[in-house]
Amino acid sequence: MTANILDGHMHARILIDSIADELDQLPRVPGLAVVLVGDDPASQIYVQSKIRMAERLGLRGEVEFLSHDASEADLLGVIDALNARDDIDGILVQLPLPAHIDTLRIMAAVDPCKDVDGLHALNAGRLFHGDDALVPCTPLGCLRLIKSIRTDLTGCHAVVIGSSNVVGKPMAALLLKEHATVTQTHVHTRGISDICRQADILVSAVGKAGLVRGDWIKPQAIVIDVGTTRVEKPEGGYEVRGDVTFDEAVRVASAITPVPRGVGPMTIACLMENTVKAAKARSARLQ
Amino acid sequence: MTANILDGHMHARILIDSIADELDQLPRVPGLAVVLVGDDPASQIYVQSKIRMAERLGLRGEVEFLSHDASEADLLGVIDALNARDDIDGILVQLPLPAHIDTLRIMAAVDPCKDVDGLHALNAGRLFHGDDALVPCTPLGCLRLIKSIRTDLTGCHAVVIGSSNVVGKPMAALLLKEHATVTQTHVHTRGISDICRQADILVSAVGKAGLVRGDWIKPQAIVIDVGTTRVEKPEGGYEVRGDVTFDEAVRVASAITPVPRGVGPMTIACLMENTVKAAKARSARLQ
Repeated sequence: MTANILDGHMHARILIDSIADELDQLPRVPGLAVVLVGDDPASQIYVQSKIRMAERLGLRGEVEFLSHDASEADLLGVIDALNARDDIDGILVQLPLPAHIDTLRIMAAVDPCKDVDGLHALNAGRLFHGDDALVPCTPLGCLRLIKSIRTDLTGCHAVVIGSSNVVGKPMAALLLKEHATVTQTHVHTRGISDICRQADILVSAVGKAGLVRGDWIKPQAIVIDVGTTRVEKPEGGYEVRGDVTFDEAVRVASAITPVPRGVGPMTIACLMENTVKAAKARSARLQ
Repeated sequence: MTANILDGHMHARILIDSIADELDQLPRVPGLAVVLVGDDPASQIYVQSKIRMAERLGLRGEVEFLSHDASEADLLGVIDALNARDDIDGILVQLPLPAHIDTLRIMAAVDPCKDVDGLHALNAGRLFHGDDALVPCTPLGCLRLIKSIRTDLTGCHAVVIGSSNVVGKPMAALLLKEHATVTQTHVHTRGISDICRQADILVSAVGKAGLVRGDWIKPQAIVIDVGTTRVEKPEGGYEVRGDVTFDEAVRVASAITPVPRGVGPMTIACLMENTVKAAKARSARLQ
């Protein structure tokens, strides 16, 4: 028996369709602004795919380009202008930023009501408290995939590998909010395979290809693989690999996300969901 | 062999002495305001002990009393006035509030820079992100007690029983910040004794007398008991008991807090620490 393979593209399409239905009920077209500093090719691809998805869905998408040597003050000026604009509901600053810019200060400058990346401390605190918040898109997408298999997570033991502010920590907070028992692990964790073997739900978000082996997985667990590592292929060229050794894990888990085509498409779909959520909340307040 | 018994009064005195030294370096006397709504006898005792400690330390302490039928608007008015006052560095709204007042809205109204209880979402988010923040006093006190025994928590497995916003969640966040592997459990957790037996550090904060038995504890673990439950004594009268069955645990743990005289005194000392921290930060900004 092999695991149910969670098709991220299919689940993203389902989510996008439900967002399209909600759009019809809004008084105006929501606007998403993505801010890109510098010309990192990977970042450019991410930004393009976000804007393309927004436009396909019928949102207004725009990109603010700043050169790689833009100052922190330049970037803060752009954010202030976007904060003030009525037609912009979501602001996303593409990370990573150049080293001379203080990422924390930038995140704190985005209006929390437009913070569709969920990285403002106020949104993080609301999530932490179990209140309504704009939540980072990747863990939001992971939770949707998990709940497509198991709607009630009460009392499940979830193990999250990785404790970044963007994925690991908000993932743990979301699972806790669903009444799962949650263990957060990271690079300093000892005996990680024994800990993972207790997991009814295992989420790995570290970016270390093949870290999680088949014998780390509890039979019938749900396994979500957030890792993406570019690995050189023997025959030349590269492939993207996840944190989980898929061929082994697929024989033990009840459900598993592939890499690619697993979590990735859900992240962009959840960005659209957050933008519409922000637009709805702003419309309700302005009425 | 029995455990080292962590004397909360002694550790609180050490902390208070170090705060007194810091006070000498401040340009003015920090002010702490406690807001009490209604006449709950337990709350009155807590408030008095906080103010008494503040004054003994040489802070300015004051209490704003509101009657039990004060409106939310009345309370918000008091908080706004305290937010605006230059001589007030710390504002603490004694919980619980009467049912007709929205506690979340009240917490959100306190200036985050004066939020010495660490309950504003902005402070919670900063803690969650691992940044500098005003942190709730009880978990702060627990961490000090733990670190009095073991200064480096890197790679320890910590289990926190209870996931309240005031104790359980910030406790887990503080332990994670110290690079411990952290499992957060709660009322829905299954197989809790097996989970607790993995803990190098076990913190219980549920308020269920005697919940944690000796055989839940890993030999040589550090055990911190935040619970306080009033239990009727067979001979009449009441006693306060912790979550941990002390007589059993003391034979297994390497260190354990008693109830009373364990975590309690540390909570008040950490409130003083937070007030001075807030005063220092405000002085630095105003300079």
